[in-house]
Amino acid sequence: MKIAILGGTGDIGQGLALRLASDTRHEITIGSRDAEKAETKAEEYTTELDSRGLDAGVAGAENEVAAAAARVVVLAVPPYHVGDTVEAIADALDPDDVLVSPATGMKRDEEGFHYHKPGAGSVTRIVADAAPDGVAVVGAFHNLAAARLANLDADLGIDTLVIGDDEDAKRTVADLAEGIEGLRALDAGGIANAPEIEALTPLLINVAHHNDGLNDLGIRFT
Amino acid sequence: MKIAILGGTGDIGQGLALRLASDTRHEITIGSRDAEKAETKAEEYTTELDSRGLDAGVAGAENEVAAAAARVVVLAVPPYHVGDTVEAIADALDPDDVLVSPATGMKRDEEGFHYHKPGAGSVTRIVADAAPDGVAVVGAFHNLAAARLANLDADLGIDTLVIGDDEDAKRTVADLAEGIEGLRALDAGGIANAPEIEALTPLLINVAHHNDGLNDLGIRFT
Repeated sequence: MKIAILGGTGDIGQGLALRLASDTRHEITIGSRDAEKAETKAEEYTTELDSRGLDAGVAGAENEVAAAAARVVVLAVPPYHVGDTVEAIADALDPDDVLVSPATGMKRDEEGFHYHKPGAGSVTRIVADAAPDGVAVVGAFHNLAAARLANLDADLGIDTLVIGDDEDAKRTVADLAEGIEGLRALDAGGIANAPEIEALTPLLINVAHHNDGLNDLGIRFT
Repeated sequence: MKIAILGGTGDIGQGLALRLASDTRHEITIGSRDAEKAETKAEEYTTELDSRGLDAGVAGAENEVAAAAARVVVLAVPPYHVGDTVEAIADALDPDDVLVSPATGMKRDEEGFHYHKPGAGSVTRIVADAAPDGVAVVGAFHNLAAARLANLDADLGIDTLVIGDDEDAKRTVADLAEGIEGLRALDAGGIANAPEIEALTPLLINVAHHNDGLNDLGIRFT
């Protein structure tokens, strides 16, 4: 399956691209607003995969080009860019494509990070509101620590929560997630349940901050 | 140490009372607005502990009496009762007592359970606002499934998050929590970080609901 990771030059995008290219047979393209930047980063990722003896590559392209070719489009961009990004690629999406939203809104004060719930209800809801008719939206990958994901020597052994109102799309994304070794996908219901999932990200950062020896935390439901 | 579990006749109170009595040497008293109800439940718990060959008992008393004798007072009451309960026991508290808040606000719609953030910011904050001067407030035990906690045959192997603005009180509650076999206490910072912790409860319910074979879920940070 063809996967586009928009914002694939950023932290979480890098981790997803490397893990999916390493552990699955999907064709991974990272997207950026700047095609040259995407291509340069894609070469870096491919070099890293090659250095590990993995016969896997990552391609790079401008966001709209990457999205046009893909069946699953991951919006690994900051939360304040998701709306614009979906609008920019809207014409490139087919009705059976799936948009994946891993972003979360956070604000920081002296106590730590806090979930900054968007007026729309959640970042996933912003994506759903901006998505063209017929394009399914699934929230996933929120609670993955970028540095740990991007370090292929790091074991995962953690869960990711998948939310969405289209059961087929949710199954597609859950299968994609479970292609990553050590990652289990759990169904957390519909998009209305997104706020509690998006709020995990600041929680994980706070817990890691306050406990010696815990870094790049993930969650396991047990 | 003397521990009072107000609302100890309810689900989460029962689990905490049984586990603490079973696994630690603390003196556990469950409180209720109705002394007779507390005593009857305490006898039930003691009978259960006895049937397991455990030489441990639980006492029962009216809330204020239980709180007066205790160093740590757990408010295992519904979120809309925490303010009233703290007011009712305020005169029974000493300045070095610790109030523990495990409650969370939830609302339910057709999609599942959602965190219902109180106007004060969190349930833990409501308790802190109502607490007499000098009495420290710690949030803990939010993310424990009551049925699993109350079933002494069930393994835990899970974490609980501890929040508070008084480090000594937080350490006291973390030590108390870790007296329960299979429970690890992690520091999640100050009371300002409570909303993300309290939001775990509806999330755990939703995840259990949507995944076959997962019930009475806990969380492990890893």
